Amino acid sequence: MTTFSPIDLTQPKFAACPDAKFVPAPADGVLPDGFFSTTNLPTFVRVNGQWIAPREPRMDSALVLDRDGVVWVREGRRLKKGDMVAVGEKEDGADGIYVQTQLVPHGVDPDAFTFMSSEVSREKPIDYAHMARILIEEKERGGYPVWVTGPALVHSRARADMSWFIMNGYVGALLAGNAVAVHDIEASIYGTTLGMTNTGEITQGGHGLHMRAINRVRAAGSIANAVEQGIITDGIMYSCVKKSVPFVLTGSIRDDGPLPDVITDALAAQDAMRAHTKRATFAIMIATALHAIATGNMLPAFVQQDDGQMRELPTICVDSSEFVVSKLKDRGTHQAFGVVTNAQDFMHILRLYVERELQSRAAMARNTPKDTKAATTR
Amino acid sequence: MTTFSPIDLTQPKFAACPDAKFVPAPADGVLPDGFFSTTNLPTFVRVNGQWIAPREPRMDSALVLDRDGVVWVREGRRLKKGDMVAVGEKEDGADGIYVQTQLVPHGVDPDAFTFMSSEVSREKPIDYAHMARILIEEKERGGYPVWVTGPALVHSRARADMSWFIMNGYVGALLAGNAVAVHDIEASIYGTTLGMTNTGEITQGGHGLHMRAINRVRAAGSIANAVEQGIITDGIMYSCVKKSVPFVLTGSIRDDGPLPDVITDALAAQDAMRAHTKRATFAIMIATALHAIATGNMLPAFVQQDDGQMRELPTICVDSSEFVVSKLKDRGTHQAFGVVTNAQDFMHILRLYVERELQSRAAMARNTPKDTKAATTR
Amino acid sequence: MTTFSPIDLTQPKFAACPDAKFVPAPADGVLPDGFFSTTNLPTFVRVNGQWIAPREPRMDSALVLDRDGVVWVREGRRLKKGDMVAVGEKEDGADGIYVQTQLVPHGVDPDAFTFMSSEVSREKPIDYAHMARILIEEKERGGYPVWVTGPALVHSRARADMSWFIMNGYVGALLAGNAVAVHDIEASIYGTTLGMTNTGEITQGGHGLHMRAINRVRAAGSIANAVEQGIITDGIMYSCVKKSVPFVLTGSIRDDGPLPDVITDALAAQDAMRAHTKRATFAIMIATALHAIATGNMLPAFVQQDDGQMRELPTICVDSSEFVVSKLKDRGTHQAFGVVTNAQDFMHILRLYVERELQSRAAMARNTPKDTKAATTR
Amino acid sequence: MTTFSPIDLTQPKFAACPDAKFVPAPADGVLPDGFFSTTNLPTFVRVNGQWIAPREPRMDSALVLDRDGVVWVREGRRLKKGDMVAVGEKEDGADGIYVQTQLVPHGVDPDAFTFMSSEVSREKPIDYAHMARILIEEKERGGYPVWVTGPALVHSRARADMSWFIMNGYVGALLAGNAVAVHDIEASIYGTTLGMTNTGEITQGGHGLHMRAINRVRAAGSIANAVEQGIITDGIMYSCVKKSVPFVLTGSIRDDGPLPDVITDALAAQDAMRAHTKRATFAIMIATALHAIATGNMLPAFVQQDDGQMRELPTICVDSSEFVVSKLKDRGTHQAFGVVTNAQDFMHILRLYVERELQSRAAMARNTPKDTKAATTR
Repeated sequence: MTTFSPIDLTQPKFAACPDAKFVPAPADGVLPDGFFSTTNLPTFVRVNGQWIAPREPRMDSALVLDRDGVVWVREGRRLKKGDMVAVGEKEDGADGIYVQTQLVPHGVDPDAFTFMSSEVSREKPIDYAHMARILIEEKERGGYPVWVTGPALVHSRARADMSWFIMNGYVGALLAGNAVAVHDIEASIYGTTLGMTNTGEITQGGHGLHMRAINRVRAAGSIANAVEQGIITDGIMYSCVKKSVPFVLTGSIRDDGPLPDVITDALAAQDAMRAHTKRATFAIMIATALHAIATGNMLPAFVQQDDGQMRELPTICVDSSEFVVSKLKDRGTHQAFGVVTNAQDFMHILRLYVERELQSRAAMARNTPKDTKAATTR
Repeated sequence: MTTFSPIDLTQPKFAACPDAKFVPAPADGVLPDGFFSTTNLPTFVRVNGQWIAPREPRMDSALVLDRDGVVWVREGRRLKKGDMVAVGEKEDGADGIYVQTQLVPHGVDPDAFTFMSSEVSREKPIDYAHMARILIEEKERGGYPVWVTGPALVHSRARADMSWFIMNGYVGALLAGNAVAVHDIEASIYGTTLGMTNTGEITQGGHGLHMRAINRVRAAGSIANAVEQGIITDGIMYSCVKKSVPFVLTGSIRDDGPLPDVITDALAAQDAMRAHTKRATFAIMIATALHAIATGNMLPAFVQQDDGQMRELPTICVDSSEFVVSKLKDRGTHQAFGVVTNAQDFMHILRLYVERELQSRAAMARNTPKDTKAATTR
Repeated sequence: MTTFSPIDLTQPKFAACPDAKFVPAPADGVLPDGFFSTTNLPTFVRVNGQWIAPREPRMDSALVLDRDGVVWVREGRRLKKGDMVAVGEKEDGADGIYVQTQLVPHGVDPDAFTFMSSEVSREKPIDYAHMARILIEEKERGGYPVWVTGPALVHSRARADMSWFIMNGYVGALLAGNAVAVHDIEASIYGTTLGMTNTGEITQGGHGLHMRAINRVRAAGSIANAVEQGIITDGIMYSCVKKSVPFVLTGSIRDDGPLPDVITDALAAQDAMRAHTKRATFAIMIATALHAIATGNMLPAFVQQDDGQMRELPTICVDSSEFVVSKLKDRGTHQAFGVVTNAQDFMHILRLYVERELQSRAAMARNTPKDTKAATTR
Repeated sequence: MTTFSPIDLTQPKFAACPDAKFVPAPADGVLPDGFFSTTNLPTFVRVNGQWIAPREPRMDSALVLDRDGVVWVREGRRLKKGDMVAVGEKEDGADGIYVQTQLVPHGVDPDAFTFMSSEVSREKPIDYAHMARILIEEKERGGYPVWVTGPALVHSRARADMSWFIMNGYVGALLAGNAVAVHDIEASIYGTTLGMTNTGEITQGGHGLHMRAINRVRAAGSIANAVEQGIITDGIMYSCVKKSVPFVLTGSIRDDGPLPDVITDALAAQDAMRAHTKRATFAIMIATALHAIATGNMLPAFVQQDDGQMRELPTICVDSSEFVVSKLKDRGTHQAFGVVTNAQDFMHILRLYVERELQSRAAMARNTPKDTKAATTR
């Protein structure tokens, strides 16, 4: 258990602090403007030149001075009109109130107490506009965005959206496993994934459809052959073949089949992945723990720019729980930025924001006099 | 442990079954078209009039007959060209292959073995188009859609989307807690939620902003007053006030403040909620366990129609894990349909699909000759 | 949306039903003994020979008959002393109350409405005594229990407990990945896992320790060699080597090293795993999605007994969320029984229950006269 | 995106650094002892007095110097015997290798790169021995441990274990909701929780049993009355009544009944909780988000000791996912220590460790000569 001393308030720097200012509550249960909002940390209030510790500390409350000179921590709803309430925002003594932050992890400055300080949380907003801009800029400057995806991506809308990103030049390379390609191809041939339709219904005999899809590609000899022969007519693998986007399909012990393109030796597969990760300028990992961590292991945290500067290698990790992102960080990929959502929803909204950003840029370009255009390009 | 007998294959109904048909593999590692894809269940194959059990059973494999008349379960990749492989899709003996389904929960018919049979899973596609149509139809027929929401909804985009649904007539009543209103109002006044901006950044002194927001509404006397006085200028609560959509804010022990409109007695709060649930024709619960289960407890599973028929009361439950939906079902709300995703993404896409459906209906209406229009309305 | 008709209560079988019996509430807010507890399903109550539908349906409430002959669904707390409350437990009409179960999945009998019907839930009790008995009986009859484990198992206590199961004859074969062996060996050599001590603290330079552990085994040539040379002196791999329990370590793209014993080709690895799964009489999968699903894919759902009977192959899947078990079932391993808990806690308690059961059997054996002993063995 | 400059290696402090030392690999795929294990961060190696950046950076690999003076980051398995490999552990230049840590959150020192740095993770070991010691010491010094529990605790073993803690003096006060008491009392009267038995089976008519349990206590007038009248004969509430351990049952909108002791007004309930939290010297929150966060809101982060020192208020939060603990921290309870496991397993093992610690202390006391005993007590 951590034990620590109260801050030494006899230090010279505290001598200059004013007394805390108290203002009457304007009505029952209503605090005065600018009231000091408490934390759960050790707090000291200067009253008549003395620093005193308020009684019954808790967060989200007010500091109330009673007639005996005692300061209490009180919920706003419990105040009566006229109760004297401390006002101030500073927690460093400048307003006569000092908050001691030893107990806050990495709490060295007086504003260390915050809400929402966790690194990954489903409760944080997702900034799709920012991700869309990064993606567009990567494309514009000829970056090498590496996409790493799991099979949850291969439902109807997400599959269409992923194909769109491939077709439109946002994918440098695709790293995935046998299952992504199998379900994508099952969807192209039979309209199902694991025997389940677009709308989530189970089809009769459906449990064998992915095996039939695999068998047809094995008969064709490769995914590219199956595309050429018209067996595979849309989807993720189709788009990769058509746009010559390189893909690495790595094998695992879970695989059915596998498809002929799958690299079944884990070490050969790592080498094939690394040929892409070492060129990566952006990484996006969606709905896969195995492939995300494998890629994280071999990905530098930074990109060396031509100008000698370095920049963080943007690494986005999308999963339906916080766990995968934490796991990735716990294995050293500290730069990973976590997005906690459903893979198909993520893909749909990200595409939407990319399309909106492009439209807005196009609109801006149309409205910009010709001779100034060059300057607006970044 | 469940023990059971092999099916009695001397029963008369099996006498009529044909021998299984075996076809040679066309190439190494390639199965013939129409191959039988195995399950992990007890299986019997009729060979020369005898029902025999294949050796080394597993799923996702083929049935191979060797020269000694033994049938093996083999992964397709292990076959050699010419190996004799059973073909057929029926599992009831009609193709000479019988699969015994005792071990499958509710497995009474011969097609009981399926994949993706779980009730709620993040791996299932989300049918936004279907939900959008239900919502539009509820509005058209004057239904009473009850929305039940948790505070994760109150991030920038989701807040705007929720306001849109209120403003456009898709919300009969809103059931929520103090926190939803507090964060919504914090966002309207200060642009933050729990001191965090739209893009997820922490603001200095931010931990007190929700307390300041509460205090301003307490000073105004009610949310409606705060809207009228121009303190609250947009968002969910603003839209409810402006469109006279009833809301019930129920208190809990977690509440800061609370806001003046909050019903702090749990029993009075239940009665206020039930006044709406008993009129409900549709329920949608987003990112809240407490309020979803409370509402589920008091919601009938059905709606009595004017024509004497009954219909299921559509109940959608959105959460970032399967757990809340399972919990809701485990407490008797069996009709709940689970959507496993992030609340803000759900709202954004649902709105998009409603807008698209409306546009498509408008387009259809324009293209329909006037005198046939009535008939197209449903 | 599901639409359905009210049950036809003019059917002859309902003619024999009695009127529902109503009994006065003994005090305000208190129901009479034997009160009928409502569900959320369509319900009909026989009053004066007429079947009527109670108003304002909800679950967990009572049926109250008012003076006008109307039946209301009312929360118990809202009753006044003397209010007439329906009593009865049957939902099939025998007590004058009929509940219609169309809306309950698989709801064919009149008692279909239940709580806690989900297949896997952290809210369900874990029957360690039952699992301990199965494990002991497997050992006694010479079964072949296959253990499939993920790296979360390799923390101090769980590692010791797993070693105990191996040393004491409860493990037929161990199926795992490179990481389980790496962390186990890191713990034996350096006392850490991923650079973290037994008590969860980070050690300086710790991020390289697993690499050093791997390198030492690579230098030794194999895990068995490293045990013989005294490099590895305790733990899971040590116990396997010492007790000649076969293990299969399969490679993946996430692997560091790998250790020399790892089978890096996924197809060779599947074949090595299947050599054990085809002999399995019991399977226990702990804290691994990849290996659990891979094993589930190749595991029959049943065991063929020598007496011609079949029995379910007991398959236990332990994970800290419901997701892995649902995923396993969704991929066809319907027999999997899910335990939602932390791997190290599971191991600790399971061992404790096995030890207790053995002590209790030993005590019973001591107290049984010699000549009857044979009969008590099962 | 974060952009930053490479460290200025012309700074005087780097002038004193030696060249990195390279040692030949002893065999193919085997690294020399003391090899430097890479991170994913910008790294510089001093070769012939020049700092150079190794090519193809990734973590968990070695630094290999080729014949042209180029340094490569290479997986150990790819080395040939005799390849020259950098040795060293320091990342601050002292071994001729410098790692730049800007990209690591809070990365100010040269050993900033670590694994397992997340605050809460199911992958971290749980130190039950430490928690047991804290609990025993709290009892010995007359502390006030506050237990906050959710209904998942009320399964057979956990219920017995919780009762044991109450009966043996480890509980200062119990804060919970209606459901904890309802299921505990249902278990005492009917042997079920939500109609489910100890072993997880559903009983017929079981969905009404919790309503019957509530009704019996309502008829008795209070939980204490029901204990006195012999209606409740064991369990958590029984133990509280028998040992006069104060409990606060707070109401929520989810409640059935509620029980007569439940405080249904949220504000009165907060005040009742705070009467205990302000005395708390230890807090343990098990399987409840609502009550944990409510308690966290009103709990100081510290305890003021009699000697003037302060100490952290130990706050343990047990849940089956990381989410609740992160949420608690995100709302300001930074001191919370998360344990990710199943509530019933947690209780069982914690009790076991407390019992073991007591036995070990008793054994030590017996073995200590009488006249030195006083000194060993702390």
